[in-house]
Amino acid sequence: MNLAVLVFASAATLTTFALDNGLMRTPPMGWLAWERYRCDIDCEHDPKNCISENLFIDMADRLFEDGWKELGYVYVNIDDCWSLKTRDKQGRLQPDPKRFPGGIRKLSRYMHDRGLKLGIYGDMGNYTCMGYPGTPLDKIAVDAQTFADWEVDMFKFDGCYSNATDQEQGYPLMSKALNATGRPIGYSCSWPAYQGGLPPKVNYTQLGQLCNLWRNYGDIQDSWDSVLSIIDWVFENQDVLTPAAGPGRWNDPDMLIVGNFGLSKDQSRTQMALWAIMAAPLFMSTDLRVISGEARSILQNKMIIGINQDVLGFQGRRILKEKSGIEVFWRPLSNNASALVFFSRRTDMPYRYKTSLSKLNYTADSYKVTDVFTGKTDILKDSTDFVVSVNPTGVVMWYISAAGKLRFHHLSRDGKLHGPAYAAKENAIPPVFL
Amino acid sequence: MNLAVLVFASAATLTTFALDNGLMRTPPMGWLAWERYRCDIDCEHDPKNCISENLFIDMADRLFEDGWKELGYVYVNIDDCWSLKTRDKQGRLQPDPKRFPGGIRKLSRYMHDRGLKLGIYGDMGNYTCMGYPGTPLDKIAVDAQTFADWEVDMFKFDGCYSNATDQEQGYPLMSKALNATGRPIGYSCSWPAYQGGLPPKVNYTQLGQLCNLWRNYGDIQDSWDSVLSIIDWVFENQDVLTPAAGPGRWNDPDMLIVGNFGLSKDQSRTQMALWAIMAAPLFMSTDLRVISGEARSILQNKMIIGINQDVLGFQGRRILKEKSGIEVFWRPLSNNASALVFFSRRTDMPYRYKTSLSKLNYTADSYKVTDVFTGKTDILKDSTDFVVSVNPTGVVMWYISAAGKLRFHHLSRDGKLHGPAYAAKENAIPPVFL
Repeated sequence: MNLAVLVFASAATLTTFALDNGLMRTPPMGWLAWERYRCDIDCEHDPKNCISENLFIDMADRLFEDGWKELGYVYVNIDDCWSLKTRDKQGRLQPDPKRFPGGIRKLSRYMHDRGLKLGIYGDMGNYTCMGYPGTPLDKIAVDAQTFADWEVDMFKFDGCYSNATDQEQGYPLMSKALNATGRPIGYSCSWPAYQGGLPPKVNYTQLGQLCNLWRNYGDIQDSWDSVLSIIDWVFENQDVLTPAAGPGRWNDPDMLIVGNFGLSKDQSRTQMALWAIMAAPLFMSTDLRVISGEARSILQNKMIIGINQDVLGFQGRRILKEKSGIEVFWRPLSNNASALVFFSRRTDMPYRYKTSLSKLNYTADSYKVTDVFTGKTDILKDSTDFVVSVNPTGVVMWYISAAGKLRFHHLSRDGKLHGPAYAAKENAIPPVFL
Repeated sequence: MNLAVLVFASAATLTTFALDNGLMRTPPMGWLAWERYRCDIDCEHDPKNCISENLFIDMADRLFEDGWKELGYVYVNIDDCWSLKTRDKQGRLQPDPKRFPGGIRKLSRYMHDRGLKLGIYGDMGNYTCMGYPGTPLDKIAVDAQTFADWEVDMFKFDGCYSNATDQEQGYPLMSKALNATGRPIGYSCSWPAYQGGLPPKVNYTQLGQLCNLWRNYGDIQDSWDSVLSIIDWVFENQDVLTPAAGPGRWNDPDMLIVGNFGLSKDQSRTQMALWAIMAAPLFMSTDLRVISGEARSILQNKMIIGINQDVLGFQGRRILKEKSGIEVFWRPLSNNASALVFFSRRTDMPYRYKTSLSKLNYTADSYKVTDVFTGKTDILKDSTDFVVSVNPTGVVMWYISAAGKLRFHHLSRDGKLHGPAYAAKENAIPPVFL
């Protein structure tokens, strides 16, 4: 057995069991077309907003020129409605030539030239959700290779028009097929969303071996009701979901809709704060060409991004639900730090919530607390009662570190602590009481 | 019979049948404490926000100094929780001396010195909604006189802790009692809200003779769901509600929550636009000390205020509900003008709605159209198809006048057309089709 054979055998074994692409050790960040642009293919009447190479080039320019890329927003992801309704003579998917005259390869080159990455979309069934050609079992290999040939960096695999049996085969097959191309392609699986999101139907151990991220709940819409329903579902099922998350494997509560039409400023802050607590992928879906300064400052908040991107990759939890409508969320971070979010479900007026760090299970004598939205810092003893004023449908979010550490650390990766290892969370701070 | 007796007899007859205070010939505008400040009486810990004379003085200063007064926002209205829990030795209501050390008279003087007006609150029952002393039948005369002695300009009469029989007596009695004081006091009745808002329980003809405005639906909360539920209720019942409105008598869909925490920019525009279509009282309930420029520009939009304050006082109607989620609202205005609102219930992305003025029952050949948010104008033939792009939960609002009239007219009162005279609306433009 020569060396080449040995390496091949080893790789084949690995791809059978695990998605070993080394990608997304922290939650991926970028931009995704769907929520804001849907299946708008009317380039004649709506040229600035239709799904076309111009739209992705425009967004890439904004990411590159407006400070997004440096913060980590590097993926530019195509969703449904990019292809022709038929495959080419070789059986390959092909982009609509009117809307993507330069082809997908042109777009990936455009991204790579700017230090960005390109994502694309397919569907584990006969058709995509909007009726474009799907990727049934017998097309998985060819489509994976097509995406690799186009030098795509991420692939979202939707589940419309497929059944549970096909999905059971198809999602693992695609994982293997992507790995087999030799190109690192981040793999986003919609599979659990089609299974109801929960065990026993969903096997989160298996998912973590197959996919880099996975949708497990319905599509987000441009409304606070939608954001709140996602928050509620995730944290009601946190005992199941948090252990599944870790470097390279993320629960995906769907896109950030900050910057669009349905959220107030407070609600926008809430989405950003709780997506950070959830260690969620941060895919914006908004028009970056006209985004308001208010929305931009929320999406570009460095401390919140730092919390989201913490190298330990622990997904946070809801630790308190008060009768007053106040809820408290907590995420353990590297360097013995943590994040707290105080959220109000109320719809009347700012609520003055009184508590102390010791009531929230903090036991060290003294902490440095930084409000991530105002930047104000304070040294707080665990036993000291404090009051936070939380706006209706808004949050107060704190980064908490040991007192004496005077700066927020954007932490580098620490190999030792990678992996799910959820039990370790329980040791970082005494057991939570919800 | 001498002249004095004749005048007295005539006045007595009038007060039996009608609220003849001459007030509120256009919908009242101002500021009302409730939605934003509720029953916050904790001046020790929350001195800037508690219900106290300081709060009303602060808001009066803002109305006076920040351009609100000139636009018509002149009422500064106290809601619940202003009084002591007991009446004084003479049986009169008394303000809490810790929170209102100068008394209500000091506040009315403060308002009047600045060209503003003061409103106060009471309840047709044993207690107010928050448990302060109510105004049962035997206290109506003394309380009306007390408010007049304090030189109050408006009175909101709530209905907690009262029954239907007492309300039947109490709301008309208070109307007479206020008129009998000789002081013009705008009279806001919560009565129909306690009767379910609809005939046969509610007699809108009688209400229009007794009250200047009336709440007929639940309290607004700081959420889009709440705003939408009010919009839906009002326009679903427009055949009953629109004929009731007219100069001096207004349906009150409750406060403007623009500037608070629960509405996006588009949703804020929608509330302002549809409150104008409804000929609704415009009572802001927000912290004018810290209001954002965005919210201020919506609340201070002169064209929308002009539409709201149109002298004909016709309440507008929903004229179309499309399957796409687009709804069209219309209000006829003086000078053969009108207002149109295109509203989207969608939660996905801006919707391109195609229609023409003739499809919306406009029959003149040519119109001048002004977008009230952008100020852009256009001359539009009735037969010309056009597309409006309507944001999710947002509106496009137009002021429409005969072509050739080049300026928006803030119209002066026209005595001939005052009064409900709803039938006249049907002649202004051919019958609507919803």
